[in-house]
Amino acid sequence: MGISPLIDRLIAAFQVLPGVGPKGAQRMVLHLLQRDRDGGRHLADALTQALEHVSRCSGCRNLSEEDVCAICGDARRDDGVLCIVESPADILAIEAAGGYRGRYFVLHGRLSPIDGVGPEELGVDQLQARVAQLKPQEVILATNPTVEGEATAHYISKLLKPDVPNISRIAHGVPIGGELEYIDGGTIVHALQGRRSIG
Amino acid sequence: MGISPLIDRLIAAFQVLPGVGPKGAQRMVLHLLQRDRDGGRHLADALTQALEHVSRCSGCRNLSEEDVCAICGDARRDDGVLCIVESPADILAIEAAGGYRGRYFVLHGRLSPIDGVGPEELGVDQLQARVAQLKPQEVILATNPTVEGEATAHYISKLLKPDVPNISRIAHGVPIGGELEYIDGGTIVHALQGRRSIG
Repeated sequence: MGISPLIDRLIAAFQVLPGVGPKGAQRMVLHLLQRDRDGGRHLADALTQALEHVSRCSGCRNLSEEDVCAICGDARRDDGVLCIVESPADILAIEAAGGYRGRYFVLHGRLSPIDGVGPEELGVDQLQARVAQLKPQEVILATNPTVEGEATAHYISKLLKPDVPNISRIAHGVPIGGELEYIDGGTIVHALQGRRSIG
Repeated sequence: MGISPLIDRLIAAFQVLPGVGPKGAQRMVLHLLQRDRDGGRHLADALTQALEHVSRCSGCRNLSEEDVCAICGDARRDDGVLCIVESPADILAIEAAGGYRGRYFVLHGRLSPIDGVGPEELGVDQLQARVAQLKPQEVILATNPTVEGEATAHYISKLLKPDVPNISRIAHGVPIGGELEYIDGGTIVHALQGRRSIG
């Protein structure tokens, strides 16, 4: 039993969001209708605007409302390094961490034949065009350390080998502040294999 | 550092929702823009429609897109019992539990002088008009068992006493399936005070 058709429809609509179930959606809807109608109107408008105007940057495939995104359009960034990531969220994480001043390319996924995701869906043609244009000294493969992420990194490294002097993979190991005792076995194996001599 | 102005604005707009912080909002926005644009358009439309058309039922003050809500408009409901609740979510919970066939009245809050919520904000005039119209045999006070909820129940019971033969308060005690060992002291005091003789 619901409150009214429009409210029931709105509660259902909120459940497309990740991590939002029936109870959470109901709470959101009642909050907006009872206490924050201005916030609700602003949300509806911001959502409509973003869906209408945001598509992919023609350079790096990151989400952008301009043809060329802010990072691709920034002349101070280093053309010599190109970092390849699975999703726009990865760019946000790397930018928030600071320290990287190169370019990006977003795959919007990873190779997954079972889901019908092949090189074409990942924009590999556009990646090759981007590499031909930027002529980077180094390509950093920052796909996730999953089976598909590793396969994707392997595929791209073979593809770009003829054109790029240096192809690297981000390090996998014990996270800073992590305690060995609580780290999963796969990560420990990576951390041991990836050990570096010191002193 | 954000992705683009429209996306940053949308991430901020999502944070008006209860329980949604910067990270959750970012996840929602990227999900909609990358993977479910139809769901996003539907959400924006449902939200706009609901904000435009949903207001309060002229009978019970529940949220409704019609002048009279489905419950007030249902001739099979019992006019003899009127249940007073703090919010529309309480009606949903009672209806989902089943077993109640009377009418409702929604206060949209509780008495809270410190927040400037007095009888007028709770629609007490409308409540009195509703009681004069329905002439219920019983009014059930189902405000929450907080200090303000109790004060509100007390205030309304005094107000309606001349017009209603029977005014009751929902029972407070150990919830079904609850174990005494893990129940807070206040609830146990209520459960003991509210004891009923059996057999």
